[in-house]
Amino acid sequence: MIVVMKHNASAKEISDVISRIRADGYEAHLSEGEERTVIGVVGESPTPLREDNYSAMDGVDSVVRISVPYKLASREFHPADSIVPLNGTGAGSNQIVVIAGPCSVESREQIIETACAVKEAGATALRGGAFKPRTSPYSFQGHGEKALQWLAEARERTGLPIVTEVMDTTQIEMVCEYADVLQIGARNMQNFSLLHAVGESQFPVLLKRGMASTMEDLLMSAEYILSHGNNRVILCERGIRTFEKYTRNTFDVNAIPVLKARTHLPVIADPSHAVGYWEYVEAIARSAIAAGADGLIVEVHPEPDKALSDGRQSLTYKRFRSMMEQVARVAQAVGRTA
Amino acid sequence: MIVVMKHNASAKEISDVISRIRADGYEAHLSEGEERTVIGVVGESPTPLREDNYSAMDGVDSVVRISVPYKLASREFHPADSIVPLNGTGAGSNQIVVIAGPCSVESREQIIETACAVKEAGATALRGGAFKPRTSPYSFQGHGEKALQWLAEARERTGLPIVTEVMDTTQIEMVCEYADVLQIGARNMQNFSLLHAVGESQFPVLLKRGMASTMEDLLMSAEYILSHGNNRVILCERGIRTFEKYTRNTFDVNAIPVLKARTHLPVIADPSHAVGYWEYVEAIARSAIAAGADGLIVEVHPEPDKALSDGRQSLTYKRFRSMMEQVARVAQAVGRTA
Amino acid sequence: MIVVMKHNASAKEISDVISRIRADGYEAHLSEGEERTVIGVVGESPTPLREDNYSAMDGVDSVVRISVPYKLASREFHPADSIVPLNGTGAGSNQIVVIAGPCSVESREQIIETACAVKEAGATALRGGAFKPRTSPYSFQGHGEKALQWLAEARERTGLPIVTEVMDTTQIEMVCEYADVLQIGARNMQNFSLLHAVGESQFPVLLKRGMASTMEDLLMSAEYILSHGNNRVILCERGIRTFEKYTRNTFDVNAIPVLKARTHLPVIADPSHAVGYWEYVEAIARSAIAAGADGLIVEVHPEPDKALSDGRQSLTYKRFRSMMEQVARVAQAVGRTA
Amino acid sequence: MIVVMKHNASAKEISDVISRIRADGYEAHLSEGEERTVIGVVGESPTPLREDNYSAMDGVDSVVRISVPYKLASREFHPADSIVPLNGTGAGSNQIVVIAGPCSVESREQIIETACAVKEAGATALRGGAFKPRTSPYSFQGHGEKALQWLAEARERTGLPIVTEVMDTTQIEMVCEYADVLQIGARNMQNFSLLHAVGESQFPVLLKRGMASTMEDLLMSAEYILSHGNNRVILCERGIRTFEKYTRNTFDVNAIPVLKARTHLPVIADPSHAVGYWEYVEAIARSAIAAGADGLIVEVHPEPDKALSDGRQSLTYKRFRSMMEQVARVAQAVGRTA
Repeated sequence: MIVVMKHNASAKEISDVISRIRADGYEAHLSEGEERTVIGVVGESPTPLREDNYSAMDGVDSVVRISVPYKLASREFHPADSIVPLNGTGAGSNQIVVIAGPCSVESREQIIETACAVKEAGATALRGGAFKPRTSPYSFQGHGEKALQWLAEARERTGLPIVTEVMDTTQIEMVCEYADVLQIGARNMQNFSLLHAVGESQFPVLLKRGMASTMEDLLMSAEYILSHGNNRVILCERGIRTFEKYTRNTFDVNAIPVLKARTHLPVIADPSHAVGYWEYVEAIARSAIAAGADGLIVEVHPEPDKALSDGRQSLTYKRFRSMMEQVARVAQAVGRTA
Repeated sequence: MIVVMKHNASAKEISDVISRIRADGYEAHLSEGEERTVIGVVGESPTPLREDNYSAMDGVDSVVRISVPYKLASREFHPADSIVPLNGTGAGSNQIVVIAGPCSVESREQIIETACAVKEAGATALRGGAFKPRTSPYSFQGHGEKALQWLAEARERTGLPIVTEVMDTTQIEMVCEYADVLQIGARNMQNFSLLHAVGESQFPVLLKRGMASTMEDLLMSAEYILSHGNNRVILCERGIRTFEKYTRNTFDVNAIPVLKARTHLPVIADPSHAVGYWEYVEAIARSAIAAGADGLIVEVHPEPDKALSDGRQSLTYKRFRSMMEQVARVAQAVGRTA
Repeated sequence: MIVVMKHNASAKEISDVISRIRADGYEAHLSEGEERTVIGVVGESPTPLREDNYSAMDGVDSVVRISVPYKLASREFHPADSIVPLNGTGAGSNQIVVIAGPCSVESREQIIETACAVKEAGATALRGGAFKPRTSPYSFQGHGEKALQWLAEARERTGLPIVTEVMDTTQIEMVCEYADVLQIGARNMQNFSLLHAVGESQFPVLLKRGMASTMEDLLMSAEYILSHGNNRVILCERGIRTFEKYTRNTFDVNAIPVLKARTHLPVIADPSHAVGYWEYVEAIARSAIAAGADGLIVEVHPEPDKALSDGRQSLTYKRFRSMMEQVARVAQAVGRTA
Repeated sequence: MIVVMKHNASAKEISDVISRIRADGYEAHLSEGEERTVIGVVGESPTPLREDNYSAMDGVDSVVRISVPYKLASREFHPADSIVPLNGTGAGSNQIVVIAGPCSVESREQIIETACAVKEAGATALRGGAFKPRTSPYSFQGHGEKALQWLAEARERTGLPIVTEVMDTTQIEMVCEYADVLQIGARNMQNFSLLHAVGESQFPVLLKRGMASTMEDLLMSAEYILSHGNNRVILCERGIRTFEKYTRNTFDVNAIPVLKARTHLPVIADPSHAVGYWEYVEAIARSAIAAGADGLIVEVHPEPDKALSDGRQSLTYKRFRSMMEQVARVAQAVGRTA
């Protein structure tokens, strides 16, 4: 940590900061520049360093954090790639994983039919929502446990593991009975009670980036899960909120290589939410793989214009097959298998 | 709802849209322009109109929603101001309410002393966190039920009602035993399970705007609570996330008059989070009241440079008193009492 | 400047950075922490420090700038308020200045009539565009020099000084013949050729913040003007671009007190562009003054529903008079005169 | 255009809107819904429809534009791809174009050496700034005409056409003497005087998206150029400004397929500015091509840690060659040649 003093900080203010650093059990390194004094904080101590407290002291201009706040998620302290096993392969391995299926599980027939279709096209796992976080209380909220049972039946038929969202700590137990991977949705990325609970569940977790969350926020949320001893976490970039109006979100493709450099966890992309219109999902899926993503999660629906949610961004079976072919070619171009 | 067809939409595509509108139980009004055909959807039907489905149909360019999606929160359908009673006055009345206290309840002494100090300076209610949503799993997470008991003791001493955050559905019962108002934090604004549950609790709710949430999102989240029969909802603007780096958030002061025009619910502001630095809290508090806010929620701490959270943006008692005096003057200038 | 080395930086990489610091004429202060080495750069040298170059060196994680990059604009090096004279008073003085008038000068009658109306309501200066930066090439682009002549005539009739936009270096000479203050629009805030030229003009400049510009960017653009010896610069906050859709822009009211703390230059607000709807302009004007703004620039039009530009956000004369009364009350509440 | 009336609009307000539509020479189509009345505006008239004016009328809630505001740039009215010739191939053809070179032309040797290096690695054209838009007035501002002469010399040696920025209308004549393509930088994307002037120049233009510009803004700026009869415009996505801090900008890869669908103009990407760190430029270049970009503009420097600008994001020759190889593989995977 570095404490930057104000231009006109008094000698007393500077010595107060130094005293506090020492009281906290650290060493203070003073650099007196032409414009201002800068104090480096060095060493180790059981007392955590609270930047906020130092920055609230008189004469302090700002405090610069130097250390990485997500130790368990950081590649600096864990250089080797983590691989989260999924259906005989693994997210984070050389092989691209593709999780596909409808936004919502709408009926037994719908989910079983879709599972067969995406399986045939080469999907690794099946997605489908039983509990749906919807902006409006008047929108379809999901079929709940019934949907989970249908998902389990679809798994039985196809062998595809199930990825499904859990919205609340009280649902975890039930969802774990049916699911293979727990999805934390973008709107719950900083629902810390939920992160704590899925951390304790020891189930694999697919953690989606919140729409106003920085990459650092995402890594800190992963750290919550990891800090409870659950290290099977897959990160997912799904678009952030910006001023652009022609798309539903802005896909932050930069996040793919940057996250891969900063963390050992696998990173996949959700091109459906990232752009929000099915016409462009294929192009965005290709771009994610080209940028180094470890996989995709994609919305597929038998009849998008009858979907109870996200119809505008869902691929038909035919378009999904086309996407899979194109993704395979790009994966090969970047030395991956699909 | 209006369906805008593509420039080159075929007669078949247009008639398919019309057939579907009729099948859904509505009337279709056709306007054939020079460039494209536009179809108005009029009437009433038990079948909800799913914009997403129409926009997924062939030949459709876009779908424009006309009706307000938050019927219960909307001022259009409920023109009179709603007032949420608070300590003998009410949020939404002519009198400004001020909820003040520390970010976290750190000790019995701290919360009781602070309660006395803010009461003396004229606060309407006491804030203080027992459960803290922290970005890092390694930061102080709150003292839980013990903190709630201290808050209750502070209420006994000062008469100030308690506003405190609830982070998870499983905490609601316990928090309701001690609190007077349930706070939903910015990060949980779209935790729909929690909104559902606080709606059912019938307790007054302080709903903070999420940092990437539009005003419409905020109103939709309020609608969740209202739709469960709980209409004691106070909205809170607390700053949104933007590219600006000199402040913690960007206070969207526009939201004050715009929300007041669109909803009958009271709207208060949180200048502490909105700007993030105590030096500017007073100015932002003044601006909120000048823009028409019904009140404030402000962080006050006996020793900000020792606070376990948010020290950088907490006012000392002295600065809080100064803020209260200035706010009173501005309130008077805009015809309110403080 | 502080150079933060990577966790695993080699001794060679560290010594290369130190050698370069010395070669550039500065001293290197080394702090070896548990996690990484941090190098403070101290002293003075004719060689400018290029952060970008250091951050491109092997083993460097990041470079933290410590010094303020806008020396002339900074309050640190120029603590006293600067006042830009305007119509017998001054922007930055205790008195609030109000610049009012139509978006575009549409006709001789329109501008003279509006000038009389805003003068009577208490305006300090007249605004009106002769050259209009319009998003569409098909929109009204302004009446050019003819409009400048009408503005001059309006000044003769009312005594109000003229604030008008200059869009291009080639217009400066002509505009200076008629105007009292040169306005740089938000879209040209980083048109550095133009900033250079208005700096050399020695005319007072009203510099509007760009819609994606940070406060630091704004201060750097002011620095361009100041560095050419022209210190009569008025800064203007006019809203930034965010994801919010209910308003045209998001008024960054935080910028008012933060800029006032960081610079000695006067800071005014443009509530018309900041919110974009006339219904809310009054509330935003009040909030700006309450936050400490030195004045306002407001759009006023005799018949907003016939305006050639910005009709949606223009006040009628009557609404402008109402705004002026309210602003006066708030100004008084914060110890200013209006 | 569609005029949406308020819920409680009076019969008089509705008839006033209808009268005005007719006075403007259009037909009004009335749809009376349960909640509100909606009026479609249909037909053709010499009077332009000003949304702003209608939305300023009493009783109007909002106005929805239906027609595309960029007629010349729109693919709706010009379905075939436009190709801008460049060095024997063309931007917008099946072949990927790569424009490479330093941010700034720093010396005769630097630019000639870099030109030879990028030519050898397969670049289509040479970039290099003679006039540099820098945030700080104290940063290197470019060598001006001398740099243009060196660029011309580099072209003579390598055959690579020159792409270089023009910052001001007064520079156009001089730059046109040396350059093959005029670049409009992100900060000047809405410098309408400059757009007008390069439109009249009839020179090919590379138009970079502004950092807070929507895709629609970009297309409107292209329309400025096209409306002056110059249809050789190449669009460039270079990242937008968001809240994310780990990268310099957020590359909006969505913009690639969306712009390609909406306009016939070629669309290239600038991975250097889009991410801002050389480590990630290669990944972002691949993602752009995978998403369907027609080419790239990339910063290459012989010694990035000595560059006078943008060293942090510049590729060495070696890294540029590696990027070219990878881009070629991805191009092939998506059916393009490189």
